[in-house]
Amino acid sequence: MTQLERARNGEVTPEVLAVALDEAGDAEELRLRVAAGSVVIPANPGHTGLVPKGIGAGLRVKVNANVGTSPDLCDIDLEIAKLSTALAAGTDTVMDLSTGGDLASIRARMLALCPVPLGTVPIYEAAVEALDAGAESPAEIPDDALFGAISRHAEQGVDFVTVHCGVTRRALGLLRQQGRRLGIVSRGGALLAARMLRSGEENPLYARFDDLLDIAHAHDVTLSLGDGLRPGCLADAGDQAQIEELVTLGELVRRARDAGVQVMVEGPGHVPMHQVRAQMEMQQTLCDGAPFYVLGPLVTDIAPGYDHIAGAIGGALAAWAGASFLCYVTPAEHLGLPSSEHVRAGVMASRIAAHAADIARGTGNARATDDAMAQARWELDWGRQADLALDPCAVRAWHLPCADNGAPMGERAACSMCGRFCALKVSAEALRP
Amino acid sequence: MTQLERARNGEVTPEVLAVALDEAGDAEELRLRVAAGSVVIPANPGHTGLVPKGIGAGLRVKVNANVGTSPDLCDIDLEIAKLSTALAAGTDTVMDLSTGGDLASIRARMLALCPVPLGTVPIYEAAVEALDAGAESPAEIPDDALFGAISRHAEQGVDFVTVHCGVTRRALGLLRQQGRRLGIVSRGGALLAARMLRSGEENPLYARFDDLLDIAHAHDVTLSLGDGLRPGCLADAGDQAQIEELVTLGELVRRARDAGVQVMVEGPGHVPMHQVRAQMEMQQTLCDGAPFYVLGPLVTDIAPGYDHIAGAIGGALAAWAGASFLCYVTPAEHLGLPSSEHVRAGVMASRIAAHAADIARGTGNARATDDAMAQARWELDWGRQADLALDPCAVRAWHLPCADNGAPMGERAACSMCGRFCALKVSAEALRP
Repeated sequence: MTQLERARNGEVTPEVLAVALDEAGDAEELRLRVAAGSVVIPANPGHTGLVPKGIGAGLRVKVNANVGTSPDLCDIDLEIAKLSTALAAGTDTVMDLSTGGDLASIRARMLALCPVPLGTVPIYEAAVEALDAGAESPAEIPDDALFGAISRHAEQGVDFVTVHCGVTRRALGLLRQQGRRLGIVSRGGALLAARMLRSGEENPLYARFDDLLDIAHAHDVTLSLGDGLRPGCLADAGDQAQIEELVTLGELVRRARDAGVQVMVEGPGHVPMHQVRAQMEMQQTLCDGAPFYVLGPLVTDIAPGYDHIAGAIGGALAAWAGASFLCYVTPAEHLGLPSSEHVRAGVMASRIAAHAADIARGTGNARATDDAMAQARWELDWGRQADLALDPCAVRAWHLPCADNGAPMGERAACSMCGRFCALKVSAEALRP
Repeated sequence: MTQLERARNGEVTPEVLAVALDEAGDAEELRLRVAAGSVVIPANPGHTGLVPKGIGAGLRVKVNANVGTSPDLCDIDLEIAKLSTALAAGTDTVMDLSTGGDLASIRARMLALCPVPLGTVPIYEAAVEALDAGAESPAEIPDDALFGAISRHAEQGVDFVTVHCGVTRRALGLLRQQGRRLGIVSRGGALLAARMLRSGEENPLYARFDDLLDIAHAHDVTLSLGDGLRPGCLADAGDQAQIEELVTLGELVRRARDAGVQVMVEGPGHVPMHQVRAQMEMQQTLCDGAPFYVLGPLVTDIAPGYDHIAGAIGGALAAWAGASFLCYVTPAEHLGLPSSEHVRAGVMASRIAAHAADIARGTGNARATDDAMAQARWELDWGRQADLALDPCAVRAWHLPCADNGAPMGERAACSMCGRFCALKVSAEALRP
């Protein structure tokens, strides 16, 4: 039985208990939310050593980091290093998006080293296989190869898979009718669209959604319904193709839940600030409160090199307005495969967005750490500030050379910004009763 | 006569014309906004070579970068280098916050090299002088020294000065009554508070506001009414002391306008996301639409090392809700004096926030560049993408080593993220009519 079915049966599973403890919440309340589908706990029983995480209503906003090889940059050790970096930076989940090298063995290594939920996009592997088998286009993926890849990922222990089930013939028709500034920017979406436009057939992930549910059910793999037609620029945000796909995903959320399969929904992408809240609220009604997993959204198209910042602005707004899960964006987005340093920057930016939204939503006791930080600042206690920071290393590495008199961490020393004009020192003295 | 008086007299000054041209707006409409005080053009006639900028209603959101020495890190050449970095990164204005070394000569060098409006905080110089004269505390500033410093800055050609006129006895009384997590975090505010609590006297910048207006009027220096009691942590946001000060600043806005002096208002600081809009709207009513100049605001306290990102989230929200002017925050905030690299990162983060807000507000034709970028992406035209990016260097430096086949910039090459699985290439082929 899946987490969803067990929750419906009234069982507080070890996974529900672990998540409730982690979030200082009530296990029975959490069970009800898992049963209702407003929370998912991606936890494939085949993923040894998994520390489960909950994603959805009432829980902390979660952050995902993508790693993985590409055909052009295929250094497995580098990707494993990025996995470590992402985990050290505090990511809640990881997705292995590898498309270069021996994909099954990369995935096995990642699963073995990843204590947090691991997600994949199985269609990438099917596309690589198609090319390896001599296909002219990566889109020439036989149905069986696609479902075979999903099955293998599920058997191997992957906790959640992105499946672009909503790229239907109708949605593609709308996309072509309306025109689009930037075509299709989802790799999975583009592959399926190319295949469908070539064959004239419906998307097999939609047409054979029941087969997909069987695989997901057998291994309690959480389905992450991909947004293959997400906008790739502000001009395409909220267009007919995007929203038609979302309507379909809402339909599939209900079918997945009926089959006892955990499900979440993926979202954009590129969205101007003033459209973010409407998009989040629309997803919640269309998809009956299923957790929303957004990529960014980026609030401008002209920040390459700094898209982690454009994504943090959009992610904070999205999460405040209801999104539960932020896929990170790194400074390398739109430019190339990220380095380890980019991975770290991406995770930190998304964690800031997630935390800012948790404060705004009033999730749990989100602001307690901020209040403790304020106290540590008032006391000019640098050691405590480091302990409380999202990135303690940043404080330790940056502050030590800045103390005005070489005082060790933890002592009351102003920093090099103000020195003897430190407002805290001046005002502490003045305000002393 | 000041810009404000000339605008009221119906004159379209060269400065109004230059700003209207820069923003592709109508000069007569802009003149009306300058006359009403909803736009300021900080342009001291003594600042040779100034290219004027407008700040306020209907104009692009502007970005300020702080540079300047401190007592602990007093390397003037380094600060001049930071000025160049900030200008190259596209800052709209610069503030010289120096507190170490020969302040007048640093300021003279900055003014000579700075084609954009330059602001200062004259009380810093008065505090340095007090210490140099043997005072025990930097707060022992004689009234005359304070007004003398302001006069000298005005005579030297400074375009706008921060003056913490709203730190009144009443506001300080409220602050002490209510208690505060983090005292006073504004240097100017702390100096004035210390002085007032010691002497029991009213803030001279409030008590003798008319003298201040005389100085500002004589040189058309724009007053930036400082928020000396701004919150330094989320817990202090919107408290009685902060809002009492803002009420006073609203009173002083009216008095400044009556005297023909251009005026803007400074704001927080640290504010949780869900309070940002209310604070911005309150400022607009209390201060009769005077341009709002905010520092961040930071939407979490626990992001030291990444406060440019916390500030970009808050700045985007604030500007969307009505703020006109964003003071940058660098990754060094709360840690020490920034490096040139931090200055660049801070300017870029604030520019992203400002631009995202301009898109959301529909300022001018803000989204045109984004739409052109989308087109350049669709065409995989890397040279054009670099030209359109907020930081062209980032694209050029990052992309070249990423092209999948060493193709030069401008050719249709996918990047190392996806290589042969490039969604744009796949979908362009599939969607071709």
